[in-house]
Amino acid sequence: MGYMGERTEEKVARKLAKKQKLVNVAAKRMKADLVLKNATYLNVFSSEFCVGDIAVSDGLIAGVGEYEGVREVDVSGKFVCPGLIDAHIHLESSMVSPAEFARAVVRHGTTTVICDPHEIANVMGVDGIRYMMEATEGLPLDVHFMLPSCVPATDMDESGAKLDFRAIDEWYAHPRVLGLAEMMNYVGVTRADPFAISQILASQAHHKKIDGHAPGLSGAELNAYIAAGVYSDHECYTFENALEKLRLGQFIMIREGTAAKNLKALAPILTQARESRCMFATDDKHPIDLLTGGHIDYIIKEAIARGVDPVIAIKVASHNAARYFLLNNKGAIAPGYLADMVVFDDFRSFNVLQVFKRGREVFDGENVIMEQPKVEEGLSARAHDTFRAPFVTEERLAAGTLPMMGVKAHELITPNLGTADGYDAPRDVAKMALVERHHNTGHVGLGYVQGFGLKSGALASSISHDSHNVIAIGTCDRDLALAVNRILEMKGGVCVVDGGKVVAELSLPVAGIMSDEPLETVNEKLERAKAVAYALGAQRGIDPFMTLSFMALPVIPHLKLTTHGMFDVDRWALA
Amino acid sequence: MGYMGERTEEKVARKLAKKQKLVNVAAKRMKADLVLKNATYLNVFSSEFCVGDIAVSDGLIAGVGEYEGVREVDVSGKFVCPGLIDAHIHLESSMVSPAEFARAVVRHGTTTVICDPHEIANVMGVDGIRYMMEATEGLPLDVHFMLPSCVPATDMDESGAKLDFRAIDEWYAHPRVLGLAEMMNYVGVTRADPFAISQILASQAHHKKIDGHAPGLSGAELNAYIAAGVYSDHECYTFENALEKLRLGQFIMIREGTAAKNLKALAPILTQARESRCMFATDDKHPIDLLTGGHIDYIIKEAIARGVDPVIAIKVASHNAARYFLLNNKGAIAPGYLADMVVFDDFRSFNVLQVFKRGREVFDGENVIMEQPKVEEGLSARAHDTFRAPFVTEERLAAGTLPMMGVKAHELITPNLGTADGYDAPRDVAKMALVERHHNTGHVGLGYVQGFGLKSGALASSISHDSHNVIAIGTCDRDLALAVNRILEMKGGVCVVDGGKVVAELSLPVAGIMSDEPLETVNEKLERAKAVAYALGAQRGIDPFMTLSFMALPVIPHLKLTTHGMFDVDRWALA
Repeated sequence: MGYMGERTEEKVARKLAKKQKLVNVAAKRMKADLVLKNATYLNVFSSEFCVGDIAVSDGLIAGVGEYEGVREVDVSGKFVCPGLIDAHIHLESSMVSPAEFARAVVRHGTTTVICDPHEIANVMGVDGIRYMMEATEGLPLDVHFMLPSCVPATDMDESGAKLDFRAIDEWYAHPRVLGLAEMMNYVGVTRADPFAISQILASQAHHKKIDGHAPGLSGAELNAYIAAGVYSDHECYTFENALEKLRLGQFIMIREGTAAKNLKALAPILTQARESRCMFATDDKHPIDLLTGGHIDYIIKEAIARGVDPVIAIKVASHNAARYFLLNNKGAIAPGYLADMVVFDDFRSFNVLQVFKRGREVFDGENVIMEQPKVEEGLSARAHDTFRAPFVTEERLAAGTLPMMGVKAHELITPNLGTADGYDAPRDVAKMALVERHHNTGHVGLGYVQGFGLKSGALASSISHDSHNVIAIGTCDRDLALAVNRILEMKGGVCVVDGGKVVAELSLPVAGIMSDEPLETVNEKLERAKAVAYALGAQRGIDPFMTLSFMALPVIPHLKLTTHGMFDVDRWALA
Repeated sequence: MGYMGERTEEKVARKLAKKQKLVNVAAKRMKADLVLKNATYLNVFSSEFCVGDIAVSDGLIAGVGEYEGVREVDVSGKFVCPGLIDAHIHLESSMVSPAEFARAVVRHGTTTVICDPHEIANVMGVDGIRYMMEATEGLPLDVHFMLPSCVPATDMDESGAKLDFRAIDEWYAHPRVLGLAEMMNYVGVTRADPFAISQILASQAHHKKIDGHAPGLSGAELNAYIAAGVYSDHECYTFENALEKLRLGQFIMIREGTAAKNLKALAPILTQARESRCMFATDDKHPIDLLTGGHIDYIIKEAIARGVDPVIAIKVASHNAARYFLLNNKGAIAPGYLADMVVFDDFRSFNVLQVFKRGREVFDGENVIMEQPKVEEGLSARAHDTFRAPFVTEERLAAGTLPMMGVKAHELITPNLGTADGYDAPRDVAKMALVERHHNTGHVGLGYVQGFGLKSGALASSISHDSHNVIAIGTCDRDLALAVNRILEMKGGVCVVDGGKVVAELSLPVAGIMSDEPLETVNEKLERAKAVAYALGAQRGIDPFMTLSFMALPVIPHLKLTTHGMFDVDRWALA
């Protein structure tokens, strides 16, 4: 306890002058660094808009009332709200660096995201977490972390790493770590499986949160999942399921992202009696969506358009996630809170005019002002070298009779269509390959797929949930092999091959899932690859590369491809 | 970090079986220990009453729905809510042991109190905190602690101990310590005084709460107080002041105790838009009030009678304090929460029928079932031996001209009435003495008081805020000296003396402020002493011993008695 006392003494000494300045500014004995004059700001405590000057000292709000500042910004007639928070996102889905992601979302008023570095952890293990930590240091966006709970997703997966609670334990001490990310293994939790329960207990031992992921879970099973210690859920597809989870004590993350969109179904849950238990999340945002849509501001607009009280919509988008994650000094315009503030025009159009992060103007209406984080050289080299697999030959991809999955428009569920004997263009039967790429095992899983629409050529991608092996679909072995090998050659990316040539590609050299290039470039190349895929026949009801990326995830019914071959998810056995 | 990993591993191993049982009960694979069947329970998340069986496993709620238990209690037609929480109380004000306090309030549905052991700390320093910790161990009432921030209250006080942030720092590691108690020194805080700011920074360094105490504070000063890090306030006398504090981010503790009653003024703040930032507190509960009134249940009833939505009133009384104090597993009927539950008849009369603490029935409608905590012998001996002062002689109390304070009915404010030359019965002028009793300094402060009403005899008490020296008022030096000496002889208590004899007394041997006897006995003796005091002429507009106990507290205007003599609070100098 002596040691603790000394630490307190040091902390107090280190923080005294700053706190005294804050108090002096609040008491008007000193001028504020910055004052937003005449702000109509959201008061999240009294659930109303109030009017006043907002005074900032050293990145913190000192006072609200009448203040003078060294810099004064008149925001008369404009609205101010706390910085917006995305309660659950996998940054890797943006396919760009976290810095590029920040550049895209800060202009939309997002100042904090809670991310689950689950994708990169499946490739690089704890080094993936470390990489994301370094790549998010010093951004104008606070990136907090939930530690991945399901690496690999299943015992059938050949991922780059396996993480139990011991492997991630030291990370709970990191100030940006808030808990354990989505417990997708809800079957294990509700069955009281020691592996899953231990993961939860470990996070609780550190007094941290545990996020849930339990689509449709209900009744006694849901009670069991919550009793185990899962405090939130972002997999609510119906109002009824969301209400049941909320009533049993879970916080509801209303998700509206690129792949899954639940706002329409869940907006009715946002009444004054219930809103404090809800927040917004995107889960996944693809490049096109980051460029053309918005982020959390978009969800606010949509919610208001669906009849949600603007006060509630903005509070849910800012204050509530801060309360859930115990981010003590975030989510309010009040003394002592971080000066994370969004200036916007009105709460129907919600156009973001200016963004302040810790009192610094980081979006001026035109540009996001930021510096690039620097990832340590060795770690960066490690992230750029994650492929351990030999090139495949056409012979290696040769096959006779194999199981066949189906593809349905607008769904990730893939039906079990029995078997096929080979390529069959008239019946729209193509071949799929999943090439293990982490451990040089030489494992290649093969199978057939019907309904993808491809009439010529092949597609391949190293974005392949959750293990991110190389997945490919093709209309002949030659193009299929070339597509796989081009991905291995690029050390990650997506490509389209036709007639023995690469006709479109996007390099994703960071762990095989993220680019080093600007968002606009990535988007352009990806959209071009998609257009080429459509031109080759890919059906319009699917996003070809997103659909491809979920074909190897054996937690979604009914038939999926593993590196050992086609897998019957319903029977939990190789098909 | 290796060490941290090992600790996690041990914790996980220790808790695994219990958690697995909880999950198995929730999933209906095992019978619950206890089920409250057909409960109409308050759902604090959806702000409504829901119906279901509540299943308990090892003191935790496992599930809500349809359940079977080893023991089943049918609560059809009755209501169930989470255990009630008093957000701020000084247990010492009950004048009985914490066990006796628990016996009194558990039958009223209180299962948790957050106490500030400020009174005993003024006598015994950190040993006082230690004493209260041990005296509250294993009660059917969880007693959490806020560490006293103002010991002594002022530099003018001669208290038993002086505590700065270093003196209390090790206590923040105690699992029942939640933060720093009411920062009564709001002047120091708003002036950025290093002593006060350091206290706040120390609590923040431990990620703990800081409670406020700032009657009437407003505007820039209030901003400064809140910016410093004071998160709550229980000194709101008007709706306007409460709303200003709430809007600036403070949690509002609506106080309704024995001395101060603020519910009437503050009930209008309890709307659905604001209720989540409010809770209930009593601050002080005297013996008579504990026996004849209720506790938090009484505040609920009063609030509902004043038009507050019953759902809001009960939520404020249970859930909200748990959220503020980060008592993660308290304040709700839901899986994973502690099975602290109150069964009551209806939400207008709010008669408590049964109380469960961690799943154990601790009030069966008749009796509170509990064991007595055992305070370590040496610590108990220390608590029973806190008087270090010689008897006073009549000569020591002799005086000529001295300053004189007034007494006003129903107020603690004492006017400055100039001076008096001696006893003056026709003008109702009596003499007061404050005898330093901690350090054997021999200091005796003397002065006159007009308006108390005493026509004969003397009163004395060792309850004398905040330093708890011996305070006495008398109509002649002989009785005054006897009254003081009787208190010293008893090592604490209150007494009434007349005609050279002790005519009523209550012994308070624990630190001079608490009894070892049952609540009923203490109440009887205290009420008898009050009756005798009234019979001797004490005016009916005051509670004689409570009034006496505040006459030495130099933070209340205008003239107060210190051990150095009468003190002018307005001028902050001896009178």
